[in-house]
Amino acid sequence: MLINNSFFNKLSPKETKFYSMLEELAFVISEISKLITESVSNYKYNESIEYFKKIKNLEKQGDKTITQIFDAFNTTFITPFDREDIHELANILDDVADYMNNAAKRIVLYHPKTIPNSAVQLGNLLIEATGCLYKAIAMLPTLKKDATEIKNCCDKLHSIENKADDVYEFFIKDLFENATDAIEIIKLKDILYELENATDAAEDAGNIIKTIIVKYA
Amino acid sequence: MLINNSFFNKLSPKETKFYSMLEELAFVISEISKLITESVSNYKYNESIEYFKKIKNLEKQGDKTITQIFDAFNTTFITPFDREDIHELANILDDVADYMNNAAKRIVLYHPKTIPNSAVQLGNLLIEATGCLYKAIAMLPTLKKDATEIKNCCDKLHSIENKADDVYEFFIKDLFENATDAIEIIKLKDILYELENATDAAEDAGNIIKTIIVKYA
Amino acid sequence: MLINNSFFNKLSPKETKFYSMLEELAFVISEISKLITESVSNYKYNESIEYFKKIKNLEKQGDKTITQIFDAFNTTFITPFDREDIHELANILDDVADYMNNAAKRIVLYHPKTIPNSAVQLGNLLIEATGCLYKAIAMLPTLKKDATEIKNCCDKLHSIENKADDVYEFFIKDLFENATDAIEIIKLKDILYELENATDAAEDAGNIIKTIIVKYA
Repeated sequence: MLINNSFFNKLSPKETKFYSMLEELAFVISEISKLITESVSNYKYNESIEYFKKIKNLEKQGDKTITQIFDAFNTTFITPFDREDIHELANILDDVADYMNNAAKRIVLYHPKTIPNSAVQLGNLLIEATGCLYKAIAMLPTLKKDATEIKNCCDKLHSIENKADDVYEFFIKDLFENATDAIEIIKLKDILYELENATDAAEDAGNIIKTIIVKYA
Repeated sequence: MLINNSFFNKLSPKETKFYSMLEELAFVISEISKLITESVSNYKYNESIEYFKKIKNLEKQGDKTITQIFDAFNTTFITPFDREDIHELANILDDVADYMNNAAKRIVLYHPKTIPNSAVQLGNLLIEATGCLYKAIAMLPTLKKDATEIKNCCDKLHSIENKADDVYEFFIKDLFENATDAIEIIKLKDILYELENATDAAEDAGNIIKTIIVKYA
Repeated sequence: MLINNSFFNKLSPKETKFYSMLEELAFVISEISKLITESVSNYKYNESIEYFKKIKNLEKQGDKTITQIFDAFNTTFITPFDREDIHELANILDDVADYMNNAAKRIVLYHPKTIPNSAVQLGNLLIEATGCLYKAIAMLPTLKKDATEIKNCCDKLHSIENKADDVYEFFIKDLFENATDAIEIIKLKDILYELENATDAAEDAGNIIKTIIVKYA
């Protein structure tokens, strides 16, 4: 380990940069979750194209931030915590963004006739989850002081993921019981699968943050 | 490397704990393989719901064991072999459990009209594979003495996976040649895919064990 | 890091072995891309079976090379660059081969009625991408001298992947707008998905090579 715990009380400019980049990434994800939820609420195909454009732009912005994080790895010798933990956290945050972006893209490509309310429920859970992530990541610079509160955010991510599982399972069961159009089944199953994956990835991000707390708080 | 080979002849209580936890995980997986195979043999939908409940409980038990293994990492400074190897092995064993759990869950959610015999064949291969894994993992504390026998188990996992590939390919070919109901195709393809993934993951677990043998036997 | 940069000017036989094995792997992948493209151009089912056999053989040859690379890890203490980077690069090259092999296998198992021109376009992009990869990997032994040219190859992989995205998106949109046979939709969506995955993996390989350049050039 390159650092000791007292380190967290005297961050150098190099170190704070990692925090602000992670926070920026978390912010982008939180914004995407709002757009995808709007897109599936009162779904109108033409509007969903506009939402996708906005989401794609945010996702690209997130990609840039990730590149900056990884570039910074190669020029900075001290990181606020384990390189690997930051690397993994950034990658999983990127996954959250990717899954939501995929959902938005699939709506545009598949042009489903309707979008079920389960998608809206998943969207709202994603807003909640990415809000938790943002809050937890914003507290990382004060990890020692805020350990309990960060842990609470991570626990909440776990319970959100459980709710998302239930929503997705209800949706799938209902789809196969009541839908008769195989092509629409393919479309909706694929779209909501990406939303459910996004909540999984958000929980994974929470688990990595938990690991960081155990190590450094 | 924190340990040397002679270490294996004088395990401390801290080290044996890792072995027993891995063995417990392997036991859980082996039990799940029996339940999923019973569930797809003479498939009756109402019974498959009961099987899924049992499998889900076992899968949760496995998750607890994995959490214990990872928690132990953070409090134990010496592990019987590379932390990373144990970490990876535990994760892959978890994947084996997850895939079987997913197959059971999909049966409940999708409610397929029938389940083909290929699913039973995959189930039987999974019983065989998880039996091999359990045997190999139970021999890890006597790695040096039992290296040849452990390696045989891992080789068997490879040949089981090859058989599972053949079964799955036969099933898919047959499905697309003979099935006419697109919705049933979606259901069965997805369910058996998870079973086939489970045999892949079992082989991966075998490969990690092989790596451990090369390093420490 | 086990090595310093000057090391690259005086490679020992042990080190050159890694390069030649990676190059062999890249060559195999490049050959597979040509076969899969021929297979989907003027698609005839019986011929696609022959193409799959050839591709499968090449893929097995690639697997052997990967095993050799990983075996060499356990007996060689000095590697030309970070063990992890080589490991990751070999694994991703393996993924490229796997995805193309899966596409070829799915054609045989699914027996689609027709194969759309988008598959040919993806095949041609794969020929281009694997050509870039081969070129970049062949220059690794002269990394310091050829850094700029290697980087150009990697950038090209990124732009190829973007084109592949566009081709795949056009295909999916067209499929859901115009196809009416749900079973054929399932087949084609799955087959082209693997081809698109292969271009993703080729770009990932390029990104790893870029990382290597940043570290050692």
